Amino acid sequence: GFAKIDQHRNLRTGYPEAIFCQGKTPEQVVAIVEKMMRSNTNIMATRASQETYELVKQMVPDAVYHEAARIIVIKRKELVVRDHYIAVVSAGTADIPVAEEAAVTAETIGNRVERIYDVGVAGIHRLFARLDLIRAANVIIVVAGMEGALASVVGGLVDKPVIAVPTSVGYGTSFGGISALLTMLNSCASGVGVVNIDNGFGAGYLASNINKLGYAE
Amino acid sequence: GFAKIDQHRNLRTGYPEAIFCQGKTPEQVVAIVEKMMRSNTNIMATRASQETYELVKQMVPDAVYHEAARIIVIKRKELVVRDHYIAVVSAGTADIPVAEEAAVTAETIGNRVERIYDVGVAGIHRLFARLDLIRAANVIIVVAGMEGALASVVGGLVDKPVIAVPTSVGYGTSFGGISALLTMLNSCASGVGVVNIDNGFGAGYLASNINKLGYAE
Amino acid sequence: GFAKIDQHRNLRTGYPEAIFCQGKTPEQVVAIVEKMMRSNTNIMATRASQETYELVKQMVPDAVYHEAARIIVIKRKELVVRDHYIAVVSAGTADIPVAEEAAVTAETIGNRVERIYDVGVAGIHRLFARLDLIRAANVIIVVAGMEGALASVVGGLVDKPVIAVPTSVGYGTSFGGISALLTMLNSCASGVGVVNIDNGFGAGYLASNINKLGYAE
Amino acid sequence: GFAKIDQHRNLRTGYPEAIFCQGKTPEQVVAIVEKMMRSNTNIMATRASQETYELVKQMVPDAVYHEAARIIVIKRKELVVRDHYIAVVSAGTADIPVAEEAAVTAETIGNRVERIYDVGVAGIHRLFARLDLIRAANVIIVVAGMEGALASVVGGLVDKPVIAVPTSVGYGTSFGGISALLTMLNSCASGVGVVNIDNGFGAGYLASNINKLGYAE
Amino acid sequence: GFAKIDQHRNLRTGYPEAIFCQGKTPEQVVAIVEKMMRSNTNIMATRASQETYELVKQMVPDAVYHEAARIIVIKRKELVVRDHYIAVVSAGTADIPVAEEAAVTAETIGNRVERIYDVGVAGIHRLFARLDLIRAANVIIVVAGMEGALASVVGGLVDKPVIAVPTSVGYGTSFGGISALLTMLNSCASGVGVVNIDNGFGAGYLASNINKLGYAE
Amino acid sequence: GFAKIDQHRNLRTGYPEAIFCQGKTPEQVVAIVEKMMRSNTNIMATRASQETYELVKQMVPDAVYHEAARIIVIKRKELVVRDHYIAVVSAGTADIPVAEEAAVTAETIGNRVERIYDVGVAGIHRLFARLDLIRAANVIIVVAGMEGALASVVGGLVDKPVIAVPTSVGYGTSFGGISALLTMLNSCASGVGVVNIDNGFGAGYLASNINKLGYAE
Amino acid sequence: GFAKIDQHRNLRTGYPEAIFCQGKTPEQVVAIVEKMMRSNTNIMATRASQETYELVKQMVPDAVYHEAARIIVIKRKELVVRDHYIAVVSAGTADIPVAEEAAVTAETIGNRVERIYDVGVAGIHRLFARLDLIRAANVIIVVAGMEGALASVVGGLVDKPVIAVPTSVGYGTSFGGISALLTMLNSCASGVGVVNIDNGFGAGYLASNINKLGYAE
Amino acid sequence: GFAKIDQHRNLRTGYPEAIFCQGKTPEQVVAIVEKMMRSNTNIMATRASQETYELVKQMVPDAVYHEAARIIVIKRKELVVRDHYIAVVSAGTADIPVAEEAAVTAETIGNRVERIYDVGVAGIHRLFARLDLIRAANVIIVVAGMEGALASVVGGLVDKPVIAVPTSVGYGTSFGGISALLTMLNSCASGVGVVNIDNGFGAGYLASNINKLGYAE
Ligand SMILES: Nc1ncnc2c1ncn2[C@@H]1O[C@H](COP(=O)(O)O)[C@@H](O)[C@H]1O
Ligand SMILES: Nc1ncnc2c1ncn2[C@@H]1O[C@H](COP(=O)(O)O)[C@@H](O)[C@H]1O
Ligand SMILES: Nc1ncnc2c1ncn2[C@@H]1O[C@H](COP(=O)(O)O)[C@@H](O)[C@H]1O
Ligand SMILES: Nc1ncnc2c1ncn2[C@@H]1O[C@H](COP(=O)(O)O)[C@@H](O)[C@H]1O
Ligand SMILES: [Mg+2]
Ligand SMILES: [Mg+2]
Ligand SMILES: [Mg+2]
Ligand SMILES: [Mg+2]
Ligand SMILES: [Mg+2]
Ligand SMILES: [Mg+2]
Ligand SMILES: [Mg+2]
Ligand SMILES: [Mg+2]
Repeated sequence: GFAKIDQHRNLRTGYPEAIFCQGKTPEQVVAIVEKMMRSNTNIMATRASQETYELVKQMVPDAVYHEAARIIVIKRKELVVRDHYIAVVSAGTADIPVAEEAAVTAETIGNRVERIYDVGVAGIHRLFARLDLIRAANVIIVVAGMEGALASVVGGLVDKPVIAVPTSVGYGTSFGGISALLTMLNSCASGVGVVNIDNGFGAGYLASNINKLGYAE
Repeated sequence: GFAKIDQHRNLRTGYPEAIFCQGKTPEQVVAIVEKMMRSNTNIMATRASQETYELVKQMVPDAVYHEAARIIVIKRKELVVRDHYIAVVSAGTADIPVAEEAAVTAETIGNRVERIYDVGVAGIHRLFARLDLIRAANVIIVVAGMEGALASVVGGLVDKPVIAVPTSVGYGTSFGGISALLTMLNSCASGVGVVNIDNGFGAGYLASNINKLGYAE
Repeated sequence: GFAKIDQHRNLRTGYPEAIFCQGKTPEQVVAIVEKMMRSNTNIMATRASQETYELVKQMVPDAVYHEAARIIVIKRKELVVRDHYIAVVSAGTADIPVAEEAAVTAETIGNRVERIYDVGVAGIHRLFARLDLIRAANVIIVVAGMEGALASVVGGLVDKPVIAVPTSVGYGTSFGGISALLTMLNSCASGVGVVNIDNGFGAGYLASNINKLGYAE
Repeated sequence: GFAKIDQHRNLRTGYPEAIFCQGKTPEQVVAIVEKMMRSNTNIMATRASQETYELVKQMVPDAVYHEAARIIVIKRKELVVRDHYIAVVSAGTADIPVAEEAAVTAETIGNRVERIYDVGVAGIHRLFARLDLIRAANVIIVVAGMEGALASVVGGLVDKPVIAVPTSVGYGTSFGGISALLTMLNSCASGVGVVNIDNGFGAGYLASNINKLGYAE
Repeated sequence: GFAKIDQHRNLRTGYPEAIFCQGKTPEQVVAIVEKMMRSNTNIMATRASQETYELVKQMVPDAVYHEAARIIVIKRKELVVRDHYIAVVSAGTADIPVAEEAAVTAETIGNRVERIYDVGVAGIHRLFARLDLIRAANVIIVVAGMEGALASVVGGLVDKPVIAVPTSVGYGTSFGGISALLTMLNSCASGVGVVNIDNGFGAGYLASNINKLGYAE
Repeated sequence: GFAKIDQHRNLRTGYPEAIFCQGKTPEQVVAIVEKMMRSNTNIMATRASQETYELVKQMVPDAVYHEAARIIVIKRKELVVRDHYIAVVSAGTADIPVAEEAAVTAETIGNRVERIYDVGVAGIHRLFARLDLIRAANVIIVVAGMEGALASVVGGLVDKPVIAVPTSVGYGTSFGGISALLTMLNSCASGVGVVNIDNGFGAGYLASNINKLGYAE
Repeated sequence: GFAKIDQHRNLRTGYPEAIFCQGKTPEQVVAIVEKMMRSNTNIMATRASQETYELVKQMVPDAVYHEAARIIVIKRKELVVRDHYIAVVSAGTADIPVAEEAAVTAETIGNRVERIYDVGVAGIHRLFARLDLIRAANVIIVVAGMEGALASVVGGLVDKPVIAVPTSVGYGTSFGGISALLTMLNSCASGVGVVNIDNGFGAGYLASNINKLGYAE
Repeated sequence: GFAKIDQHRNLRTGYPEAIFCQGKTPEQVVAIVEKMMRSNTNIMATRASQETYELVKQMVPDAVYHEAARIIVIKRKELVVRDHYIAVVSAGTADIPVAEEAAVTAETIGNRVERIYDVGVAGIHRLFARLDLIRAANVIIVVAGMEGALASVVGGLVDKPVIAVPTSVGYGTSFGGISALLTMLNSCASGVGVVNIDNGFGAGYLASNINKLGYAE
């Protein structure tokens, strides 16, 4: 019947299994990891606390914790990484956790990533200083909170797909990321796709799907 | 100075010049077209009324009007089109204008496009009947109004980048496309990028940037 | 005078008395339970903490605590349960507490319930695998957070009344359940009624009112 | 393959095919009707203008137009109607079009309907005067705009499933039906399911699914 | 100059000085009370915690704490209270703190108050049982959360000014009192004035201004 | 039975019957007027167009049209008017229609009204020039659009009940009256009750209920 | 009394009287102009249609109509204009009407204005090409719709006060200017003040108040 | 290349470097301060806790903590302060922290500041008593929460640029500052620029840019 539909995506694509830890107890995460360990995939757990990591590590000693990204990675088999890279561009210091969630996600799926952080438009010369590196990427992820203007500016300067990630950084009328989200959806530069507020994981995943096209043939 | 920044994107990329007609008089559109005709690019005018087309046609007799898409195309030089295609998937009859804006945009930029229309989740068998065609695409554009659930369902069935376009189709709590937009941003399937409500043009443009990566090497 | 209006609903219908514990201290709940014990009805207390349960149990030793549902049940008289059942279908692990609130409510009122959990549309084959059980129900409760697309998909596959419960599961633009709520209200599938965010109790109650019609004659 | 999923719902259920005319030209509606006439189902077209009706009538002379409901009905085969009825209760004169959309939809699907109109809570004695008729129904549809309080009051007075339909009647902070919608979702009376603003069709359809349970055995 | 404008309202009107404690430390409140004690007015402090009260009491031993209302009252001179009364009507148990804020405020300003609590529309007979007491009041304050329908029902049953106070009681789409607020603003019954969410103080103050008119001559 | 509840409010109170014409055809209004003429009450029709008035006048030649207020009044019996008055205070020229709706409503119910128009806070001396007249009223209605600050300023200068009416006058972030509404609900001056946006009728009605208390004894 | 407060601002400041025509008939505008002509001030009427202008011109033949700005100016006495200027910077063609409202307002009050139009961030080199002119201004007004990113970019490049004007240009999630407004309020560049959506008049007025400080001594 | 764009703003303008501490650990703030100490600018850290201050003080013993403003200032070189001053006007006690953030920011940048606090419109005579001091300022910052009406009133009384700062002070429909923000954006008085909710820093910075113009020549 539907076996045709269910094609064991992770095994087929080589993508890791992902666990979303937010709202789960460390014990629950460990239980899911244990079940996943039975098949031979790589595993990543996002939004993981230090405490969750400690518990996972007791079971899987070579689990690695990316602290800024809050991601636990369990590597069971090596992935081939190509030269084509994803650029992760972010605006302010406070946006780094989301940028790292995107970067580590993309790396864990097997992509090369270049980080270009702290280049918000308030001091736009910082962005221009890194423009060549950005333009040579296959895909660009732009991570920004507050008013999120960086996505429009980058979108106007490159010819590659841009994935914009609004962050909840800001206060008052930033409304927990809505201001940045609206900016990105209304970007006057064409060719920008937007994901949910703070969704670094989704951006890294989508960018990976795009980047892999770029060397699939 | 800044010549380095301004790199005559359209000439370089072979992309057409685009005019957004909404809120412009036919006369204003004609004036812009006239100025663009001086350089040798292709031209497309989106959200164009029949009336605007008639006026443009008087000046450029071989201008073509894609009625459903509401796009005028003026082709000045031929583009090489490759086999790799973009799938444009849409939910209901009322979503077709936006789907066509995406499809015609992508075609005008030089992409092959496959249309899979009227496959909304209320009768989900229609979608499954076309699944092979969808899965074989390089990129998938999903166009849906009302609750926009189609994007999540397609996102869960494919391994390729998905661009979701919420439409303003619906009434009451569809809030002119907000319901579909939120659905797409919160999609439980990973790998979905979202554009502005009714922004078929942006989706076609972004999908083209992605599709071209897929055969760039 | 108004005795005609006040018809002692619970005695007449056999429905239990219900207490909504959220925002009440354990002591306040116990006081209400004590008062209710004077008449001979069954009693259920929703949104009850473990702490509240401990206190209630001291007074009523055979009170039962449904932990996942967060419901305390005090059964004073047996209810006849018929074969006709309510299907409770839920999307993700995090939606289970709301699903359980619905299921336990319906059971406490005297319905047979079938649970079909973790069948979200990101992996739609899981839903199809359980479709026969869902279709044979008298009423279907669909519980989903994030984008809530499951309600539309189920609504399109069955011919029975569907009660949709949006949950506050998600982050960013899920807006504490608003995204799922809008999806459900705009469902392209006809025949879906919606209750408040996280209102498993209301869904179970309404489903029971419907299910009982189904064998009332 | 999927034939199992696609079970020709209308033929099987005896339900009519429905066309949603809003946003379609009279010509487009006629084209759809023509196609539907090839199979032997009943047909209903909602949100239909007088002008659309005139055109449909030219093709199908015995098409009937329910003016207040704005529904065209084409009856091709008789439906068995049972005694069990749906009560349609509405608040003010301006809510009648939505109430009629619900009532005519339910009747067209083969239900007996009792109309209890103009019983808004500003003059609550009008409601009490009709309470017996309401209470004897299998399902109650409550249609109200402005603050929508009628749904809560009715919900508190009956033991049957209640479907609440907020209408866009009102001004200022009624926000096109949002005020009534929120009232209905937050109803302090249990057992109320809500549909989209002005969605009389959806309420009639869901009520029919419920009512038919009530005499299915 | 402006002395004409500043007419020492409290001295003239006999109204107490009011302190709004929310967001002030107990020490800050005590400092303000101390300053106010220099003139001979009555004093009330709203939204006061038990802790604040303890500290005030050390300075002013005969300060009284109305626990449910969270109001501290310091009576320095007696007020004449007339027979005409304000009715404070509330829907559920959780609304009592706001109802008490209104009642105690009105009493502290010198009004007779009648409390009619726990008469929400889910069991409307409870309201009718108290209707005579409500109708004989000079002004009626209606306090309700969730969907706030009680205000409309009361508004339709009396001929006196009604002050409606939405409360933040509820969850999900009650949106912290917005649902009740909109209900009250859109009340189909005429003659209802609304104050801010949870603003029992404002309602008591306004009701007092109205009640005093009622025996001013 | 319920006759006790239904006490023929208009006959008893001497209040006129009111028709809300918005969304009704002139013919529908005439039909309602005709029915009301059978009993001996005064009649007022609000939000009435000139066209509706012409039609009503053909049937009732002595119907009067208050053009600025858009109210038709049919006086069948004289009302006693007392000296105590309602002050209607408004901010800008564009707020006058709503102010007039309030004033004419109050007059038609039998109140003396004083109009103090065009005294918005942008030129606050205009307000002070009229302060004595405002302060001597029994009740004050404040009508303002845009930011609605006038309500707070007046509320701080008087000791009488204040009814605030936000108007939809403004553009951009006035959001059709929401800005003024929020101002009024959050008024730092105590003793302000608020009605729906543009609801001059409701304000006049409530003010009348209050004013009549003021000379009831 | 209050004469001290009312200091005949326009006479004293040399500022023109302003009429806001939106929502006024041409006849009403003419009546106001006529009254204003009695004193010897300059007059400007904003949001004026061509039709209103024709009527004004019949009475005041040397009235001038600034078509793009939609402003009528009647100059009765010459103003001294200094070298210090206000830069009006705008993003797209569709923003020009608002930019012109700002520019003409500032000029009419007696300021020198430099226009730098069509320099949106999608092609950021256009902005840099004009940067010297922008930086040499006393004040900069930035006018932008859609995502409004231009305000942040300009704010980061200058040391002068920046007034940002969001416009209602855009569609979908631009929400009639809200997206641009939020961007401007959250600008990561310090020193940006924001006015209402489309409020070119307010921006020109505020910029004038600032510019005049710059040469007041 | 871009050195032209990056002009070491702080060195050139004499403005201090600013750190926004919210969301940073005390350790992170100290690290940033350390790096800034290498160049010879003044430093200010806003939204700083007492705890952060203690840590900074260990490294820089003459760092000063402005407690109400929550700002740490490190002065490395003296600034010339002129007579022209900025008036900071605030409504209630709870608004003082934001007012102080604005005042201390402006002072740290080298401006004279006059504070006029606790002059909210509920007792408008307090404002008039200080009007001469307000009117003699070069720029006026108005800080207000709740309904924010003070900005409009001040705006109508002065001829100087006004910067309005909405605060998050209030409850219920103040919506964390949105009510005050909307009031300020819709101010009926012209010449008011608005900054983000609680953004005292931005207001102080912008006011400084304006004030310095006023004595630049
Ligand atoms: N940070 C994240 N944000 C959004 N989605 C995520 C994130 N991390 C994992 N996911 C998705 O959540 C799924 C796992 O959810 P769960 O079964 O609840 O652990 C994965 O398959 C991913 O698609
Ligand atoms: N008034 C209505 N409101 C909501 N949905 C409707 C309405 N009328 C018809 N529908 C639904 O719309 C479907 C037809 O849509 P369409 O194919 O666009 O004509 C029907 O199958 C119904 O499920
Ligand atoms: N619970 C309350 N809700 C709203 N306003 C209040 C409340 N209690 C006191 N007030 C008002 O707050 C003012 C005192 O505010 P404050 O000077 O900040 O203490 C009083 O004069 C009252 O007008
Ligand atoms: N385009 C505009 N936008 C906002 N306010 C304006 C505009 N034009 C004029 N105004 C203000 O409106 C006032 C005149 O309003 P009115 O008395 O209604 O004509 C003027 O004094 C200005 O302060
Ligand atoms: Mg930084
Ligand atoms: Mg269809
Ligand atoms: Mg799962
Ligand atoms: Mg009626
Ligand atoms: Mg209760
Ligand atoms: Mg005026
Ligand atoms: Mg342009
Ligand atoms: Mg105070």
